[in-house]
Amino acid sequence: MKIPISVLVFLSFSLVVRAESTSSRPFNPPNLDRGLAVMQAFLRRASVKEFDSRKLDWQDLSDLIWAAYGVNRPAEGKRTAPSAYNAQDIELYVFLEEGVYFYEAREHVLHLFEPGDHRDLVSRGKKGLKEAPVFLVLVSDVSKFPQGTAAKKLEWGAISAGIVSQNISLFCAGTNMVTRPRAGMNAKLIRELLFLQDHQILLLNHGVSYAKPAGGE
Amino acid sequence: MKIPISVLVFLSFSLVVRAESTSSRPFNPPNLDRGLAVMQAFLRRASVKEFDSRKLDWQDLSDLIWAAYGVNRPAEGKRTAPSAYNAQDIELYVFLEEGVYFYEAREHVLHLFEPGDHRDLVSRGKKGLKEAPVFLVLVSDVSKFPQGTAAKKLEWGAISAGIVSQNISLFCAGTNMVTRPRAGMNAKLIRELLFLQDHQILLLNHGVSYAKPAGGE
Repeated sequence: MKIPISVLVFLSFSLVVRAESTSSRPFNPPNLDRGLAVMQAFLRRASVKEFDSRKLDWQDLSDLIWAAYGVNRPAEGKRTAPSAYNAQDIELYVFLEEGVYFYEAREHVLHLFEPGDHRDLVSRGKKGLKEAPVFLVLVSDVSKFPQGTAAKKLEWGAISAGIVSQNISLFCAGTNMVTRPRAGMNAKLIRELLFLQDHQILLLNHGVSYAKPAGGE
Repeated sequence: MKIPISVLVFLSFSLVVRAESTSSRPFNPPNLDRGLAVMQAFLRRASVKEFDSRKLDWQDLSDLIWAAYGVNRPAEGKRTAPSAYNAQDIELYVFLEEGVYFYEAREHVLHLFEPGDHRDLVSRGKKGLKEAPVFLVLVSDVSKFPQGTAAKKLEWGAISAGIVSQNISLFCAGTNMVTRPRAGMNAKLIRELLFLQDHQILLLNHGVSYAKPAGGE
């Protein structure tokens, strides 16, 4: 089948436009001076049950995701989170009201994975939690470890998830946001939504929001 | 068998004296204002290969251990690190030149577990690493999880270790110390030294030191 060049050009152009306008959302560069002193973050580290429903500013979401799993040494491509063999096995999915996004760390950008509000798959409609404007879902692709038994790879993947999870918790504690790490979620439907393969282990999620205003309900 | 009261009093006194003078070393209260802004800690988070051999000040060791796994909400006994079911499954062993200690978080104190310098079991004599004055060894007691399959308990224990590990990495990044999380160590001999049972999973270690002075070798 022959396709006229003009059609190909049009199709390519459409794809680019779609990618630019809806599929990819570049983050702001991280604000590297913000936050409390680290010891204050350790003091305030806590898992909350009540979340605020206000949407996060784009800068706040940018900084949250960069702290969680961004590239902090661009020349080497290394990250805020270590991993066994520097496998960078964690995949970070961001559930927002407008869609589910995949975080691409080198470009510090969100790629649309699936439009629509799927946050209830993570919160399971749990009162207090379901109000959170953002859920981060952590998956370890254990096929990225270059060696090791299956059991060791699961262990390293879970350690990786714990490390990224604590980045999220400490960023929130240091910037007046709140969060809670949870293993519970609708794993079956999330695995289907994200097209996860057997080597992609769904490990943790974090609802994140601003702290509720003092005096709020 | 009857034991004279005077002997009992003497024995109790001896035990107390021994505990006070050699077996237990209370930490200083944490310095809750120290450290860089959290975003700077994320920026500087890295795993180093070269460690400085200077001993850590007691305050620095106190703050490091508190940040790693201390109680940050005394009224509830809750910690800087979350865990599934708040099981607080991680055990933190501190390998110093003078002995191996167990961290008791509620009292914020080190209890002597075994005298002597056993740091080589952790570093395996690795050049650059073996100079570190302190090694922290993380064990998950998975029997503390009140439910779950054996596989899930291993997963939660590894996540817990990752969380405490990242506390260590970020404390160091925020206070001009250096560290490296490693799964490799002489697991067989460390398990024997610590009398670990099957439900105590040896997961990670961290050499920790001051950053080498600029211009140092």
